[in-house]
Amino acid sequence: MQGFFNPQSAAIIGASADPNKGGHNLVANMVLTLGRRLYPVNPRYAQIDGLPCYPSLAEVPEVPDLVVIFLPPAAVEQALADCARKGVASVMIQSAGMAEVGPEGQALQQRCLALAQAHGMRLWGPNCLGMLDGVNGRVFSFMDPGRWENSLRPGNVSLIVQSGALAGGFLMQVLGQGYFGISKACSLGNRVDVNECDILEHLATDPHTQVVAMYLESLADPARFRRAVENLARPVVLLKGGLSQEGARAALSHTGSLAGNAAIGEGFFRQLGLHRAHDFVELMDLAKALSLWQGRHGGPRVAVMTWSGGAGIVNADHLAAQGLTLASLAPATLERLGRVYPPWMAPGNPADIWPAIERSGWLTAQQETLAALLDDPGVDAVQVHYFVRPDVLPQAREHFAAAAGSSKPVAVWAAGDAHLFDELRRMVEPLGCPVYNEIGRGVKALSLMAKPRRP
Amino acid sequence: MQGFFNPQSAAIIGASADPNKGGHNLVANMVLTLGRRLYPVNPRYAQIDGLPCYPSLAEVPEVPDLVVIFLPPAAVEQALADCARKGVASVMIQSAGMAEVGPEGQALQQRCLALAQAHGMRLWGPNCLGMLDGVNGRVFSFMDPGRWENSLRPGNVSLIVQSGALAGGFLMQVLGQGYFGISKACSLGNRVDVNECDILEHLATDPHTQVVAMYLESLADPARFRRAVENLARPVVLLKGGLSQEGARAALSHTGSLAGNAAIGEGFFRQLGLHRAHDFVELMDLAKALSLWQGRHGGPRVAVMTWSGGAGIVNADHLAAQGLTLASLAPATLERLGRVYPPWMAPGNPADIWPAIERSGWLTAQQETLAALLDDPGVDAVQVHYFVRPDVLPQAREHFAAAAGSSKPVAVWAAGDAHLFDELRRMVEPLGCPVYNEIGRGVKALSLMAKPRRP
Repeated sequence: MQGFFNPQSAAIIGASADPNKGGHNLVANMVLTLGRRLYPVNPRYAQIDGLPCYPSLAEVPEVPDLVVIFLPPAAVEQALADCARKGVASVMIQSAGMAEVGPEGQALQQRCLALAQAHGMRLWGPNCLGMLDGVNGRVFSFMDPGRWENSLRPGNVSLIVQSGALAGGFLMQVLGQGYFGISKACSLGNRVDVNECDILEHLATDPHTQVVAMYLESLADPARFRRAVENLARPVVLLKGGLSQEGARAALSHTGSLAGNAAIGEGFFRQLGLHRAHDFVELMDLAKALSLWQGRHGGPRVAVMTWSGGAGIVNADHLAAQGLTLASLAPATLERLGRVYPPWMAPGNPADIWPAIERSGWLTAQQETLAALLDDPGVDAVQVHYFVRPDVLPQAREHFAAAAGSSKPVAVWAAGDAHLFDELRRMVEPLGCPVYNEIGRGVKALSLMAKPRRP
Repeated sequence: MQGFFNPQSAAIIGASADPNKGGHNLVANMVLTLGRRLYPVNPRYAQIDGLPCYPSLAEVPEVPDLVVIFLPPAAVEQALADCARKGVASVMIQSAGMAEVGPEGQALQQRCLALAQAHGMRLWGPNCLGMLDGVNGRVFSFMDPGRWENSLRPGNVSLIVQSGALAGGFLMQVLGQGYFGISKACSLGNRVDVNECDILEHLATDPHTQVVAMYLESLADPARFRRAVENLARPVVLLKGGLSQEGARAALSHTGSLAGNAAIGEGFFRQLGLHRAHDFVELMDLAKALSLWQGRHGGPRVAVMTWSGGAGIVNADHLAAQGLTLASLAPATLERLGRVYPPWMAPGNPADIWPAIERSGWLTAQQETLAALLDDPGVDAVQVHYFVRPDVLPQAREHFAAAAGSSKPVAVWAAGDAHLFDELRRMVEPLGCPVYNEIGRGVKALSLMAKPRRP
C-alpha cells in the first residue's frame, strides 16, 4: 500500500489545465508533495501549471509509484491497460460511472478488476475522493484546494469511507473544517479491490494514527476485518450503513456491492470492541472525543458540573441510559467545594456551580470546582455544562485549566450564545475537552471511555 | 390566570435603578406593555427610568393586576403579606433562595404558599424567569433585554419550563435566538402553586398556541395533567427530567419537589399521545418541526432526496428504526424524474439527485425532484439532503419552492459549509422546511407526523 500512501512519483491520467475541473485540482493538490515527479497526462496540453504534460502514460519518463485516473468511464479501461503495460503497481480510479450506474458500469468495473489482477496492480476506487494525509500534507484527491488548504491539519484520527465521492466529500469536508486533526483520510468509493482491510492493515503500521473512524456499507471480508481490527489495537468508531433491510436495499443500488452482510450481526462488532455511531456528525463527534482523550482513562463514575439543576437532572438520566453513574464525591472533595460554595448550598453531584459563581466569582468557581472533581479518586470523568457568554468566554482556558493536565476525560456541553460555540471549541478542545451542543452526545462520548479495554 | 398573562397594571417589588440588576431589567421589560400603569416599588428611589417609584406597595395608587417580587429570600414573606393586604390576586416570585437551597428555604416557601392560599392569591414561582409573550410583546422577566429584544418574535409555540431560572434561561435563550416564534414562554421555577396544569388550561384558550413544548421534572397532578392535555388537543413535546433513579434523586435536591412520579410510567405519556424529547436542543428541534408543519399531514412513507448514496442508506436505516418506510414511487413519478435524470441513472427512492444536477443543472434538478416527490400520492413526507455551498445557497428558496405550497412535511439535512447553515435556515424554514444537521433528527421529527392522530 506504500504506492498509495507514500509514493515518490505519480502520474495523473486525465489531468486538466482548466482550473474548474477536478483534473486540475488533482495537479494542484499533488504537486505540493511530489513536485516535478508529478506527471500530468493529457494529449491536449503541453504543460499544466508549469509541469510538463505527457500525451500518454507511455511517454512519462519513469514508472510512477502511483497513477490516478480521472476520466470518463469509457476511457478508463484503456488507461488501466496503459498502466499495466507501463508496469505500474498502484492505481487509483477517482472518476465515477462504474458499478454505481448499472449493469454496464458493473461489467466495466469487473473488467478493470480482472485486468488489474492479471498484472498484479492494486486498484483503489473507482468513484472515490482518494486519500488525504494531514501529517505529510499529501492530498491525492480531485477535491477543490479551497476545501482543505486552510483547515487540513495533522492529527491522530484516520478515516475510512466506503461509498462514493459525495459521502466521502461530506466526511472530508467535516475534516476540512478542522473538526479534528487527521493522519489519513481514505475514500474507497466502489471498493473494487483496495478495501477497508487493506487500509486497516496499513494503519496498524502508522505511528500517527491513534483513532480510526469508518463509514462502511458492508464488510469486504469479515474474517480479515476481524484480524485487522484486532491487530490495529486502537479504538475504532464505525458508522455502518445498511443496518436495516431498507437501508441494505438502498446500499445495493448505491455502490453496487451487496451490502448488509446479513450474517454479520451486532454481536460481531460488539465482540471486536468497535464503538458505534449512527449518524454522520455523531461519527465525527465520537472520533473527536477519542482523539482528544488519547492517553486518558475513563470509567463509569461521572461528575457533572452544571449551572442548571434541570440540566444536571437530564444529564443524570443520560448517564443512566448509557450504564454510567453519578460519582459519589469523597468527603475531602465536598470540603474543598465548600470553600467556594456559599454556606447555604451543600455541594453534591451534579455540582451546581451557580451558587459558587455568586459567592466566589466565575473564575474561582469554575477552576476550583473542576479541579476538585478531577482530583477525586472516585470520579472517573467529568461533564461540564458551560454557559457561553461574551463576558465570560475570554477566560474559558483558565476555567478548564485543570482538564489540561488530567488523566481523566472531560466533556463539555455548550449552551448560551450559539455563535460563540466555535470560539469555545478553539479555546478548550486543545485542553482535551471536546465541546457538544447536546448533553446526550457528551455522555455517549464518555461511555466509550467506560467500556472495559480488550486485552 | 389572566393576571399573569394579560394584566393591565403591575407592581415590581424589588425594582432597581441599577441597569446591571435584574430588578432594573424587570422595569425595562414590563414598561413596554404596561406603560405608566407599571409601579416600581423600592424605598431607595423616587423614580426609575422616569416612572414614579413607590416606597411600599401600600402607596401604589391602584390594586395592580400582577405583582412581581424580586427580593432576597429574607424579604419575600413580608412583600407577600403586603400583597395580601393590598388585595392582589396574582403574584410572581422570580427571585431564588427558597426550597432549592435547603430545609430553611423549604419552610419559607411553605409559609408563602399558606399565606397566598389564605388570601386567595395565585403564586407563580419562586426561582423562575417569569413569562414571555411573543405575540403581545409582554416580557415579565428579569431577563436582560439584550437577550430577547432582537429575536423574540410572535409564533405558535408555547413553552412550559419547570425548574429554576437557569434551565429556563437556557430554553428562553434558545427562543431568544429566534429558534421559532413563540406565543407564551412560561418558566415556573419551584412551582409552589401555579403549575403546568394551570398553564395548559390557559393555553387551551389561547388561539395563538398551536404547539406546546415542556420541560418537567415531575407532574404536579397527573389526573389533572391528563385532562389538561386532552382538552388542549394540540401537539405537545415533553422533555421529562428524572426518568432514571439517579435523575430523580438529583431532581429532589434541585427544585425541592419530589420528582419522578414513579407511578407514572412511559405508558401514561404514550397514552396521552405526548411526543418525547430527551435533550434540550432536541426539544427545540421537535417543537420547531411541529410549529412549521402546522396544517400539514404526514405519514410513514418517506421519500429521501439526496446527493449521497451513503447518506441515503443511513437515512433509510433511521427511517426503519423509527417505524417509517421508504415510499415506493409511482410510475408517473419515476417518469417525471426520468426527464431530469441522465439516461444511465434509473431514479428511485432514495432519489440520488447528483446525476440529475449534472444533467439538468442544480435549479431544475432540485425543483423538479422535490415537486415530483411531493406530488406522488404514495409519498407522505420528504427528507431533503441539502449540500450547502456559497454558489448554490442563493437559490435555496427556489429549490424548495414546491415545499411551500405542499400539505406534506419536508425535513432538511444540511451538510457542507456549516457557517452558512443559519442562512439556509432563514431561507427555507419559512417555507415549512425545518433544517437539521443530523439525519436522525429530521427522521425523528417526521416520525411525530406519522403517529396516528388521537380522536
